[in-house]
Amino acid sequence: MNGNRFGRLFQVTTFGESHGEAMGVTVSGCPAGLELSEERIQRELDRRKPGQSMITTSRGEPDEVSIKSGIQDGYTTGTPIGMVIQNKDARSGKYEPFVTAPRPSHGDFTYSAKFGTRNWGGGGRSSARETVNWVAAGAIAKEILATEDVEVKAHVNQIGDVEASDVTWEELVEHTEENEVRCADPETAQEMRELIDEYQEAGDSIGGSIYFEARGVPRGLGAPRFDSFSARLGQAMMSVPASSSFEFGLGRDAREYAGSNRNEDWQFDDDGVPEPVGNDHGGIQGGITTGQPVYGEVTLHAPTSIPKTQATVDWETGEEKEIQVVGRHDPVLPPRGVPVVEAMLALTILDFMLLAGRINPDRLDGKPGEYETEYHPRSPENVGEE
Amino acid sequence: MNGNRFGRLFQVTTFGESHGEAMGVTVSGCPAGLELSEERIQRELDRRKPGQSMITTSRGEPDEVSIKSGIQDGYTTGTPIGMVIQNKDARSGKYEPFVTAPRPSHGDFTYSAKFGTRNWGGGGRSSARETVNWVAAGAIAKEILATEDVEVKAHVNQIGDVEASDVTWEELVEHTEENEVRCADPETAQEMRELIDEYQEAGDSIGGSIYFEARGVPRGLGAPRFDSFSARLGQAMMSVPASSSFEFGLGRDAREYAGSNRNEDWQFDDDGVPEPVGNDHGGIQGGITTGQPVYGEVTLHAPTSIPKTQATVDWETGEEKEIQVVGRHDPVLPPRGVPVVEAMLALTILDFMLLAGRINPDRLDGKPGEYETEYHPRSPENVGEE
Amino acid sequence: MNGNRFGRLFQVTTFGESHGEAMGVTVSGCPAGLELSEERIQRELDRRKPGQSMITTSRGEPDEVSIKSGIQDGYTTGTPIGMVIQNKDARSGKYEPFVTAPRPSHGDFTYSAKFGTRNWGGGGRSSARETVNWVAAGAIAKEILATEDVEVKAHVNQIGDVEASDVTWEELVEHTEENEVRCADPETAQEMRELIDEYQEAGDSIGGSIYFEARGVPRGLGAPRFDSFSARLGQAMMSVPASSSFEFGLGRDAREYAGSNRNEDWQFDDDGVPEPVGNDHGGIQGGITTGQPVYGEVTLHAPTSIPKTQATVDWETGEEKEIQVVGRHDPVLPPRGVPVVEAMLALTILDFMLLAGRINPDRLDGKPGEYETEYHPRSPENVGEE
Amino acid sequence: MNGNRFGRLFQVTTFGESHGEAMGVTVSGCPAGLELSEERIQRELDRRKPGQSMITTSRGEPDEVSIKSGIQDGYTTGTPIGMVIQNKDARSGKYEPFVTAPRPSHGDFTYSAKFGTRNWGGGGRSSARETVNWVAAGAIAKEILATEDVEVKAHVNQIGDVEASDVTWEELVEHTEENEVRCADPETAQEMRELIDEYQEAGDSIGGSIYFEARGVPRGLGAPRFDSFSARLGQAMMSVPASSSFEFGLGRDAREYAGSNRNEDWQFDDDGVPEPVGNDHGGIQGGITTGQPVYGEVTLHAPTSIPKTQATVDWETGEEKEIQVVGRHDPVLPPRGVPVVEAMLALTILDFMLLAGRINPDRLDGKPGEYETEYHPRSPENVGEE
Repeated sequence: MNGNRFGRLFQVTTFGESHGEAMGVTVSGCPAGLELSEERIQRELDRRKPGQSMITTSRGEPDEVSIKSGIQDGYTTGTPIGMVIQNKDARSGKYEPFVTAPRPSHGDFTYSAKFGTRNWGGGGRSSARETVNWVAAGAIAKEILATEDVEVKAHVNQIGDVEASDVTWEELVEHTEENEVRCADPETAQEMRELIDEYQEAGDSIGGSIYFEARGVPRGLGAPRFDSFSARLGQAMMSVPASSSFEFGLGRDAREYAGSNRNEDWQFDDDGVPEPVGNDHGGIQGGITTGQPVYGEVTLHAPTSIPKTQATVDWETGEEKEIQVVGRHDPVLPPRGVPVVEAMLALTILDFMLLAGRINPDRLDGKPGEYETEYHPRSPENVGEE
Repeated sequence: MNGNRFGRLFQVTTFGESHGEAMGVTVSGCPAGLELSEERIQRELDRRKPGQSMITTSRGEPDEVSIKSGIQDGYTTGTPIGMVIQNKDARSGKYEPFVTAPRPSHGDFTYSAKFGTRNWGGGGRSSARETVNWVAAGAIAKEILATEDVEVKAHVNQIGDVEASDVTWEELVEHTEENEVRCADPETAQEMRELIDEYQEAGDSIGGSIYFEARGVPRGLGAPRFDSFSARLGQAMMSVPASSSFEFGLGRDAREYAGSNRNEDWQFDDDGVPEPVGNDHGGIQGGITTGQPVYGEVTLHAPTSIPKTQATVDWETGEEKEIQVVGRHDPVLPPRGVPVVEAMLALTILDFMLLAGRINPDRLDGKPGEYETEYHPRSPENVGEE
Repeated sequence: MNGNRFGRLFQVTTFGESHGEAMGVTVSGCPAGLELSEERIQRELDRRKPGQSMITTSRGEPDEVSIKSGIQDGYTTGTPIGMVIQNKDARSGKYEPFVTAPRPSHGDFTYSAKFGTRNWGGGGRSSARETVNWVAAGAIAKEILATEDVEVKAHVNQIGDVEASDVTWEELVEHTEENEVRCADPETAQEMRELIDEYQEAGDSIGGSIYFEARGVPRGLGAPRFDSFSARLGQAMMSVPASSSFEFGLGRDAREYAGSNRNEDWQFDDDGVPEPVGNDHGGIQGGITTGQPVYGEVTLHAPTSIPKTQATVDWETGEEKEIQVVGRHDPVLPPRGVPVVEAMLALTILDFMLLAGRINPDRLDGKPGEYETEYHPRSPENVGEE
Repeated sequence: MNGNRFGRLFQVTTFGESHGEAMGVTVSGCPAGLELSEERIQRELDRRKPGQSMITTSRGEPDEVSIKSGIQDGYTTGTPIGMVIQNKDARSGKYEPFVTAPRPSHGDFTYSAKFGTRNWGGGGRSSARETVNWVAAGAIAKEILATEDVEVKAHVNQIGDVEASDVTWEELVEHTEENEVRCADPETAQEMRELIDEYQEAGDSIGGSIYFEARGVPRGLGAPRFDSFSARLGQAMMSVPASSSFEFGLGRDAREYAGSNRNEDWQFDDDGVPEPVGNDHGGIQGGITTGQPVYGEVTLHAPTSIPKTQATVDWETGEEKEIQVVGRHDPVLPPRGVPVVEAMLALTILDFMLLAGRINPDRLDGKPGEYETEYHPRSPENVGEE
């Protein structure tokens, strides 16, 4: 309703502005018994954090997460997990010229139009800094998914007109983190890097896209129509800052396919279970997962903060004026967007799995020493029947 | 959660299967005082109903809506509006071969995998027949939006590789309903029609896409991030049966745009209000509407029901077999999808407007004779202050 | 939000006014495989329906339910169950005097104040006729609970100052339906009946209360605080028309108990599981069920429709006037409220059990002949791991 | 769903355990433009905090709130307000004996039964310490309500068998904070105090109740049935730790009233608006507010932490044992419960007012210097029409 909550059973609630005191996220609905540490979450935050390479903003944020609740002796307790990430390197002064003179294609005007005011430092609440919260929550989701052998990966598959070849799952796993662009096709990554450098040097920015894939997603997830797997994944991905398209399976290209071409016959798999012969459907049929890999793409438009001179108006003075959005900005979004897209994918899948009763609590290792007990209250034989 | 509810304040709840006794939809949160009749709703249903042309299924459904509640003397009362649409021309026998042998790329297998059973006649709950409910609810939404001068339109902008030229709002309004394809570009419509005929004659089907646009959408709608205007519209559009991509503004093409190219300077409009110089952003910046037209596209893949022989497996007998999905089917989805996409667009906008307090009850004409009274309980001077 | 929806996973959505064409309820989230018939639901509706005895309104409603969807071959399919109940004996004419002159302590004024209009026949949406929908939905809930050996019962434990003795579960089960008052204490039932007759003859009405109890409720249900078992049960019971108090366990009397008196020591039960030595806590500790019986009480104030002359004002004419609410009305609410309270109790428990994964689909018998298959898509060995 | 969220539009999300590092609450949906400071919130927290008198626990918590987001130049911005309150005086050691041996009538067993583990220090998540979050959120709600002249008050109206006389609104306002018991009837307050001292000295505790009242609540709030004003208020109040009954208006006593006695005739008020002649209905008719004061009561049972020796069992060792809950505990809950009940009342009313569009943004003073502008984006003439 208010835009800071995601998930039905695995619920994520966020707060924080780019230049506020801190970012924060409360995760509730996390099963009890998951081993969880700040270090584990930090690993994901480090993939998203600024200043990690020459093609990201140089803002110096350590993005250190502090867990405030929901953990006992290193294991989750099933109660809300509160996390806070301090903002440390905010320099709001540079944003003063934009208080009443909106930057082109930012949220400056729309936030002011909606609320009559806004936190303007660094873009305030409209900044993609918010996604640090998502990545923290997504890190927990990934850990739970891992207990069910569900994995999510993403990589940058296009920057400007430089398009990556199709990559295998193995390539995704192996190569994505090897280069700063986070493209699993190393040669294209190099080309992308050069293109980005060009735009950056020209005081400009460039768009791109992210391919995502999930393996091990159980079949039967999704509640058509309004809560179909694709509808909720669409909402998740269109929440990502700067996203302007969402596709799964054949996506946009499906418009040019004949039914006879796109349709996939059924065969039996090795276990005698029906499976489609191909996966043009992106792991989703009739809005419900088939058990094949779920995959798709999200387009992120070019960063709107560019040093080039642009025209705007000042609604206080009534004057037209020229501005330059100087500061520390990313020339391209997908490289840092990869962990964000993975987080939203993980959160979406986990939420559906919890709804379907597909997370097995016995696979969480969670009984720290203090609770070693003959009577384990939640064990099936004790809780099962009254 | 269960897939049959849409909307936060303007709430739509549906039931019904393709070959069940009836379809039904309950609308709650509709403001009181709206003049409403079954005829008004019927007008929209007739645009979606089967058998309307040679390129739609010949199933003979009158799709007559019956309003069961929520109306007094022709005006809405603010309480739930129950509507029922009888199914009259169901012939389930043809679906018996598919009970345990799923049709390629349908929801047969996934529904059975999810529930362990399914209503199989005509595809049951997975059938796009469900959208009759949406169009009925959307008809009410359109009426309310009209009181605020908000209009929604859609047309078919691509079938297979036949792409329509860009059309103006006026063309959308004028030409869309002139041809059976519902393409506002008459010449392309003819080409599309020929292409569809070709596929139909070949026992095949073909994909396509729908362009949608809304005018008069007030600025300030949307609650970034998870309830941004684009995220909720994405959910709405990805709910549409057979949709595999959602785009707004530049959409997928934005990945190839430089920031300097995509960014839009600000100017003052005639009233001295800031407005972007262009609308590559599709009426949404930072997840919030700008007041410019909202527009985008949805891809609908080719209908999966085709008479061509296809291979499947029977999970009861363990045998591989060949099937033909004979029956009465659409060779292409977008022409009947146009009113469905319009309905989801209208429902999404209205829901956000209600959340923002942007529906003015005084513009609803709704005081039938019986209520003519000196003391109008809800009038501001009476209700305003206690 | 709009008052016509209850439940998080087992979702009930209603429509209908007292003198409208029909009442309707959509149930979604019902597990697949439950044997379900209109007859089963009818049994519960008959307990609530008007005209069943001298102490209920004589309105002649057969209250026949028609299931429109969600069933295949007599078993639920997991998709929404639409139900419609026609209104047949509405006589709105008698309500015309009250259109602009509100009846004392009814919802006439508040509905008009909220909506600026209202359906006035028979009280419209404010009528307790709405609860026919709840009982229909509750009948389904009871069937599912039965597969887990959870039972709910209620009886009338007080009318005016006539209070029933405490009754055992066995007495509840055996005696409640034996008398028209639905009091499980037969002697008190007779006294209550006499008291009701007195009030009815005097053109008056009288208040009363309902005791409810649930057996077999598994421990561990409830999500403190805002979704604690008691908070959600409180919401459910305060939804019941005319309810003005909700209590569980010691309820209101707890204010006079010392901690040492109310606290319950722990002992081991026969299976070596900790259990409290008593049940003053009403089956709920810390907002979560303990596995002991859940019990409590709801007060229903006297029916507001009484034939005695009362004073009101006409907001159209500005005149003071006297009115008589003639017609067919109940002199007391609890006897017909018993199945309503049971329905809300069942819906609340079931919803929590679904959230906790405590409904075992294997206990639903639901595999009709047509689906007898070697490959049962939802069986654990097939769906469990991909 | 998970118990840490309250509110539909004014959304409160909490985290934290009694002996965890910090408590936290995120408020979203707060209108922009409200002047807000930590000092204002602190005033309410100080009314709830421990150690404020001899009849509260001596735990030394300053309960200092730190606002992390959602404020610009002292005014709310409409985006989420994150607040954190550090826990400073936790002494978990005393709780070690109870890890596997549950304290009588606490949530120790039920939390372990639900989650298979729990944070046990100080009761962890089951502790009433959680309510510090509610009071912080409620403080904001009260500030907004004040702009519409809505006020909420509560006082302790019964401790054990000592019952306060009925008090006027003026007495509530004037006397409640004058004594440590928070009873607005000073003489009874003294009696209550003596009774509490008795129990405390005896190593025991005692129950009690809180009367609440709200003035200025606009008529027309509430969405019967499931979201009626009374249903949602019931949920709110039954969320309060240790609550075992909720009543409004005549409450439980209504069961003994005749219709002719409880019914309230209608008269015109000074402005010619219909009003009931009395307020036995507690400001709510048909589930919707009438504009009269809303009032009711909540019972809080005796604190379960008492130093008396009690019996329990250890589920690890299988042994029966005796325990003493030593430590710093309240002998009675209502005195500190008063601000908690007020908070829940304020949150409930505000949420309904936002849903009804009854919060006028122009009454918020919120335009700090930086935003003084000729073009105020949200002003009606600018935002109203596009």
